Amino acid sequence: MKLLRYGDRRHEKPGLLDQDNNIRDLSEVVDDITPAFLNSKNFSWLKTAEVSGLPMVPGQPRLAPPVAGVGKMICVGLNYRDHAQESGMDVPQEPILFMKATTAIVGPGDDVVIPRNAHKVDWEVELGIVIGKTAKYVPEARALDYIAGLTVVNDISEREFQLERGGQWVKGKGCDTFGPIGPYLVTLDELNDINALPIWLELNGERVQDGNTRTMVFDVPYLVHYISQFMRLEPGDIISTGTPPGVGLGMTPPRFLQVGDVMRLGIQGLGVQRQCVVAEVSADIGEEEVAR
Amino acid sequence: MKLLRYGDRRHEKPGLLDQDNNIRDLSEVVDDITPAFLNSKNFSWLKTAEVSGLPMVPGQPRLAPPVAGVGKMICVGLNYRDHAQESGMDVPQEPILFMKATTAIVGPGDDVVIPRNAHKVDWEVELGIVIGKTAKYVPEARALDYIAGLTVVNDISEREFQLERGGQWVKGKGCDTFGPIGPYLVTLDELNDINALPIWLELNGERVQDGNTRTMVFDVPYLVHYISQFMRLEPGDIISTGTPPGVGLGMTPPRFLQVGDVMRLGIQGLGVQRQCVVAEVSADIGEEEVAR
Repeated sequence: MKLLRYGDRRHEKPGLLDQDNNIRDLSEVVDDITPAFLNSKNFSWLKTAEVSGLPMVPGQPRLAPPVAGVGKMICVGLNYRDHAQESGMDVPQEPILFMKATTAIVGPGDDVVIPRNAHKVDWEVELGIVIGKTAKYVPEARALDYIAGLTVVNDISEREFQLERGGQWVKGKGCDTFGPIGPYLVTLDELNDINALPIWLELNGERVQDGNTRTMVFDVPYLVHYISQFMRLEPGDIISTGTPPGVGLGMTPPRFLQVGDVMRLGIQGLGVQRQCVVAEVSADIGEEEVAR
Repeated sequence: MKLLRYGDRRHEKPGLLDQDNNIRDLSEVVDDITPAFLNSKNFSWLKTAEVSGLPMVPGQPRLAPPVAGVGKMICVGLNYRDHAQESGMDVPQEPILFMKATTAIVGPGDDVVIPRNAHKVDWEVELGIVIGKTAKYVPEARALDYIAGLTVVNDISEREFQLERGGQWVKGKGCDTFGPIGPYLVTLDELNDINALPIWLELNGERVQDGNTRTMVFDVPYLVHYISQFMRLEPGDIISTGTPPGVGLGMTPPRFLQVGDVMRLGIQGLGVQRQCVVAEVSADIGEEEVAR
């Protein structure tokens, strides 16, 4: 099952993608795809629903993040062996965690905005885990039971804010629009082997990241287990599991995003994102202007 | 105005503290104190309300975090000059930011739970800013307009998780119950000078932190301005502004929380918190058990 949300900002509707890649409207059967909706009872029921009876959505509407109201977004750093090698860094002994402000979350096709005073905006295609039920001290062997599905994340990062402005990575990871998520929340039964998924990103048509989840240092079940030792995970929480080689910071010379650039990125079985890079245009003090 | 929420978990009601320190029930006039409620129109209206006509709440109910549904919690590190000096560290050139998982948030009198495998749980009394309207690129001179009020935060931290487990501070800052907030959301008009507030914490009756907000490196308006350069702040977001000297990690030898310890902490004009330290009792896999 591929769940999604579509429509204009603040007016999104729930939907799903049928076998023929048509969007079917779910708004007659569910208000929205919220954290509270992500439980196995609802999923079982949806899977038996007569999809062909649901209204087909015409055209190509905007897609939104596939879950509304994400409570927290936890990211894993340096989690691909080949990426650590190319960076000349040791593979971490245990997962490196950081958090991304949930206000950074946008849809998979929404513009990525270069903030004021930013010069080093970078891309990072990542496999995202969407939590399906409350998880704490979860054994690795049962971790998959706590996952609602997987999605694509672009963990956009401003490297100067992240690394040269003092302290933790927060400043460079949580900027508005730095968290495109989607297009779909894909349930695990749709995927053959989550440890062998091609994962890639193209910048202006050139493939710059071309990896595979098999080179992850810590795999999906281990990450859910591990993070749940430190904090409770709740439905709708997202874990972004690190990026394969090929980010701009690692190039010689480093290469960063410019206004007008276009990113396309995807993971096999999870769909494709596409973002245009645009300049910041917020007024000095935004309120309605910047709220989404 | 001192806003609060009271009652059992998941059944909290909105209230306010009257001039005689009685809790008045607001549930006839507002559903809950949510981010959407925190705007100047509601506040103006509440301030003119006939408080003596509101039902008085008998007894001493549990107090909850004074705002429900906090979207993000941003903390500032090393933000007191005297704390930096006692730690032998340089005063930061610009604010050090990190994030605390919102699942860590509890009421001001709720128990603080020592997680499994934790040996170095520490206290940090802090002044908390509650954002009242969406803020982005806010000039320092107008920053106070974006604040709904102030509150007390205990930024509980596990030092081994934070500093010795690789990478960022997230693991030691976001554990469940590590974010007591309250007792009140106090509007700025109740306070004479937010840059001269005594701030203190007592462990088992012994005063271990005894500071004043006048030794903050970066003050409240600057922090709102500064953080809004990196990300949009939304109503209900909390900024915790750093701790004065006297945390356990800084003692010789270091001193950490034990089961049975009691913390009392407060800030002049903002009220007092009190927490008992208890052991982790969650089952291996929690769901309903651990959800609040």
